[in-house]
Amino acid sequence: MKREKLSDEAVEAFLAAHAGWTKEAGAALALARTYSFEDYAAGIAFAVRVGFAAEARDHHPDLHIGWRRVRVVWSTHDAGGITALDTEMAERTDQLAR
Amino acid sequence: MKREKLSDEAVEAFLAAHAGWTKEAGAALALARTYSFEDYAAGIAFAVRVGFAAEARDHHPDLHIGWRRVRVVWSTHDAGGITALDTEMAERTDQLAR
Repeated sequence: MKREKLSDEAVEAFLAAHAGWTKEAGAALALARTYSFEDYAAGIAFAVRVGFAAEARDHHPDLHIGWRRVRVVWSTHDAGGITALDTEMAERTDQLAR
Repeated sequence: MKREKLSDEAVEAFLAAHAGWTKEAGAALALARTYSFEDYAAGIAFAVRVGFAAEARDHHPDLHIGWRRVRVVWSTHDAGGITALDTEMAERTDQLAR
Protein backbone atom coordinates (compact mmCIF):
# COMPACT_ATOMS: atom_id res chain seq x y z
CA MET A 1 0.00 0.00 0.00
CA LYS A 2 2.91 2.28 0.81
CA ARG A 3 4.19 1.74 -2.72
CA GLU A 4 1.04 2.71 -4.59
CA LYS A 5 1.07 6.03 -6.39
CA LEU A 6 -0.56 8.84 -4.44
CA SER A 7 -3.38 10.90 -5.93
CA ASP A 8 -2.61 14.42 -7.12
CA GLU A 9 -4.65 15.69 -4.19
CA ALA A 10 -2.59 13.73 -1.68
CA VAL A 11 0.64 15.06 -3.19
CA GLU A 12 -0.65 18.64 -3.06
CA ALA A 13 -1.74 18.15 0.55
CA PHE A 14 1.76 16.97 1.44
CA LEU A 15 3.37 19.95 -0.30
CA ALA A 16 1.03 22.39 1.44
CA ALA A 17 1.97 20.93 4.83
CA HIS A 18 5.74 20.60 4.28
CA ALA A 19 7.63 23.80 3.52
CA GLY A 20 10.58 23.51 1.19
CA TRP A 21 9.41 20.48 -0.76
CA THR A 22 8.39 20.76 -4.39
CA LYS A 23 7.27 18.28 -6.98
CA GLU A 24 9.71 17.67 -9.76
CA ALA A 25 8.80 16.23 -13.13
CA GLY A 26 11.40 13.81 -14.49
CA ALA A 27 11.18 10.21 -15.65
CA ALA A 28 8.51 10.08 -12.93
CA LEU A 29 7.05 12.69 -10.60
CA ALA A 30 9.24 13.13 -7.52
CA LEU A 31 9.41 15.06 -4.26
CA ALA A 32 12.46 17.30 -4.06
CA ARG A 33 14.00 19.57 -1.47
CA THR A 34 17.31 21.41 -1.31
CA TYR A 35 18.94 21.84 2.10
CA SER A 36 21.68 24.37 2.85
CA PHE A 37 24.58 23.81 5.23
CA GLU A 38 27.21 25.88 6.97
CA ASP A 39 30.04 24.02 5.34
CA TYR A 40 30.78 21.29 2.84
CA ALA A 41 31.46 18.62 5.46
CA ALA A 42 28.04 19.17 7.01
CA GLY A 43 26.41 18.49 3.65
CA ILE A 44 28.36 15.27 3.21
CA ALA A 45 27.45 14.16 6.73
CA PHE A 46 23.77 14.84 6.06
CA ALA A 47 23.89 12.84 2.83
CA VAL A 48 25.40 9.90 4.70
CA ARG A 49 22.66 10.02 7.32
CA VAL A 50 19.98 10.09 4.63
CA GLY A 51 21.82 7.17 2.99
CA PHE A 52 21.66 5.13 6.20
CA ALA A 53 17.93 5.85 6.58
CA ALA A 54 17.38 4.91 2.93
CA GLU A 55 19.20 1.63 3.30
CA ALA A 56 17.29 0.79 6.48
CA ARG A 57 13.98 1.31 4.68
CA ASP A 58 15.23 -0.17 1.40
CA HIS A 59 14.09 2.94 -0.44
CA HIS A 60 16.76 5.17 -1.94
CA PRO A 61 16.60 8.80 -3.02
CA ASP A 62 18.71 10.64 -5.54
CA LEU A 63 21.13 12.86 -3.63
CA HIS A 64 22.77 15.82 -5.34
CA ILE A 65 25.64 17.16 -3.29
CA GLY A 66 26.99 20.58 -4.18
CA TRP A 67 28.83 23.34 -2.39
CA ARG A 68 27.16 23.56 1.05
CA ARG A 69 23.89 22.21 -0.28
CA VAL A 70 22.25 18.84 -0.78
CA ARG A 71 19.20 18.21 -2.92
CA VAL A 72 17.15 15.14 -2.00
CA VAL A 73 14.75 13.64 -4.54
CA TRP A 74 12.28 10.93 -3.57
CA SER A 75 10.28 8.88 -6.05
CA THR A 76 9.11 5.28 -6.31
CA HIS A 77 10.40 3.74 -9.51
CA ASP A 78 8.03 0.75 -9.50
CA ALA A 79 4.99 2.96 -9.07
CA GLY A 80 6.18 5.56 -11.57
CA GLY A 81 5.62 8.45 -9.20
CA ILE A 82 5.21 9.60 -5.61
CA THR A 83 3.98 7.13 -2.98
CA ALA A 84 3.35 7.16 0.76
CA LEU A 85 6.84 5.72 1.15
CA ASP A 86 8.22 8.88 -0.45
CA THR A 87 6.27 11.24 1.79
CA GLU A 88 7.32 9.16 4.82
CA MET A 89 10.98 9.40 3.80
CA ALA A 90 10.66 13.11 3.00
CA GLU A 91 9.53 13.67 6.58
CA ARG A 92 12.39 11.51 7.81
CA THR A 93 14.79 13.61 5.73
CA ASP A 94 13.47 16.77 7.36
CA GLN A 95 14.09 15.22 10.79
CA LEU A 96 17.66 14.39 9.84
CA ALA A 97 18.28 17.95 8.64
CA ARG A 98 17.29 19.47 11.98
CA MET B 1 47.98 28.48 -12.66
CA LYS B 2 46.01 25.40 -11.71
CA ARG B 3 42.86 27.50 -11.73
CA GLU B 4 43.18 28.90 -15.24
CA LYS B 5 40.81 27.54 -17.84
CA LEU B 6 42.33 24.81 -20.00
CA SER B 7 42.37 25.11 -23.77
CA ASP B 8 39.92 22.99 -25.79
CA GLU B 9 42.88 20.93 -26.98
CA ALA B 10 44.02 20.22 -23.43
CA VAL B 11 40.51 19.12 -22.44
CA GLU B 12 40.26 16.83 -25.47
CA ALA B 13 43.68 15.36 -24.67
CA PHE B 14 42.53 14.57 -21.13
CA LEU B 15 39.32 12.94 -22.39
CA ALA B 16 41.25 10.86 -24.92
CA ALA B 17 43.56 9.58 -22.17
CA HIS B 18 40.93 8.95 -19.47
CA ALA B 19 38.18 6.47 -20.31
CA GLY B 20 34.78 7.12 -18.82
CA TRP B 21 35.07 10.89 -18.56
CA THR B 22 33.01 13.19 -20.74
CA LYS B 23 32.65 16.92 -20.97
CA GLU B 24 29.34 18.27 -19.85
CA ALA B 25 27.96 21.64 -20.84
CA GLY B 26 26.14 23.39 -18.00
CA ALA B 27 26.56 26.80 -16.40
CA ALA B 28 30.22 26.13 -17.27
CA LEU B 29 31.97 23.30 -19.07
CA ALA B 30 32.69 20.41 -16.67
CA LEU B 31 34.30 16.98 -16.54
CA ALA B 32 31.83 14.25 -15.64
CA ARG B 33 32.00 10.54 -14.97
CA THR B 34 29.46 8.05 -13.66
CA TYR B 35 30.76 5.16 -11.52
CA SER B 36 28.79 1.98 -10.83
CA PHE B 37 28.87 0.03 -7.57
CA GLU B 38 27.79 -3.36 -6.33
CA ASP B 39 25.47 -1.90 -3.76
CA TYR B 40 24.10 1.36 -2.47
CA ALA B 41 26.40 1.52 0.55
CA ALA B 42 29.47 1.28 -1.68
CA GLY B 43 28.28 4.30 -3.64
CA ILE B 44 27.78 6.32 -0.45
CA ALA B 45 31.23 5.30 0.82
CA PHE B 46 32.82 6.37 -2.47
CA ALA B 47 31.06 9.74 -2.33
CA VAL B 48 32.39 10.30 1.18
CA ARG B 49 35.94 9.49 0.08
CA VAL B 50 35.65 11.93 -2.82
CA GLY B 51 34.27 14.46 -0.35
CA PHE B 52 37.31 14.08 1.90
CA ALA B 53 39.68 14.51 -1.06
CA ALA B 54 37.70 17.56 -2.18
CA GLU B 55 37.89 19.16 1.22
CA ALA B 56 41.61 18.48 1.50
CA ARG B 57 42.21 20.25 -1.83
CA ASP B 58 39.56 22.91 -1.20
CA HIS B 59 37.95 22.08 -4.54
CA HIS B 60 34.53 20.50 -4.51
CA PRO B 61 32.69 18.55 -7.18
CA ASP B 62 29.00 18.04 -7.67
CA LEU B 63 28.15 14.49 -6.60
CA HIS B 64 24.97 12.84 -7.82
CA ILE B 65 24.22 9.70 -5.85
CA GLY B 66 21.66 7.31 -7.26
CA TRP B 67 20.92 3.62 -6.97
CA ARG B 68 24.35 1.92 -7.05
CA ARG B 69 25.87 4.74 -9.06
CA VAL B 70 27.59 8.05 -8.38
CA ARG B 71 28.15 10.76 -10.95
CA VAL B 72 31.06 13.11 -10.24
CA VAL B 73 31.21 16.50 -11.96
CA TRP B 74 34.31 18.68 -11.75
CA SER B 75 34.43 22.30 -12.84
CA THR B 76 36.12 25.47 -11.59
CA HIS B 77 33.52 28.11 -10.87
CA ASP B 78 35.91 31.06 -10.77
CA ALA B 79 37.44 30.14 -14.14
CA GLY B 80 34.07 29.38 -15.75
CA GLY B 81 35.21 26.00 -17.04
CA ILE B 82 37.67 23.11 -16.74
CA THR B 83 41.10 23.75 -15.21
CA ALA B 84 44.16 21.66 -14.35
CA LEU B 85 42.74 21.40 -10.85
CA ASP B 86 39.74 19.60 -12.32
CA THR B 87 41.80 17.13 -14.34
CA GLU B 88 43.98 16.50 -11.26
CA MET B 89 40.90 15.79 -9.16
CA ALA B 90 39.34 13.65 -11.89
CA GLU B 91 42.43 11.42 -11.75
CA ARG B 92 42.21 11.35 -7.97
CA THR B 93 38.56 10.31 -8.27
CA ASP B 94 39.55 7.43 -10.53
CA GLN B 95 42.10 6.31 -7.93
CA LEU B 96 39.45 6.36 -5.20
CA ALA B 97 37.09 4.29 -7.34
CA ARG B 98 39.59 1.46 -7.77
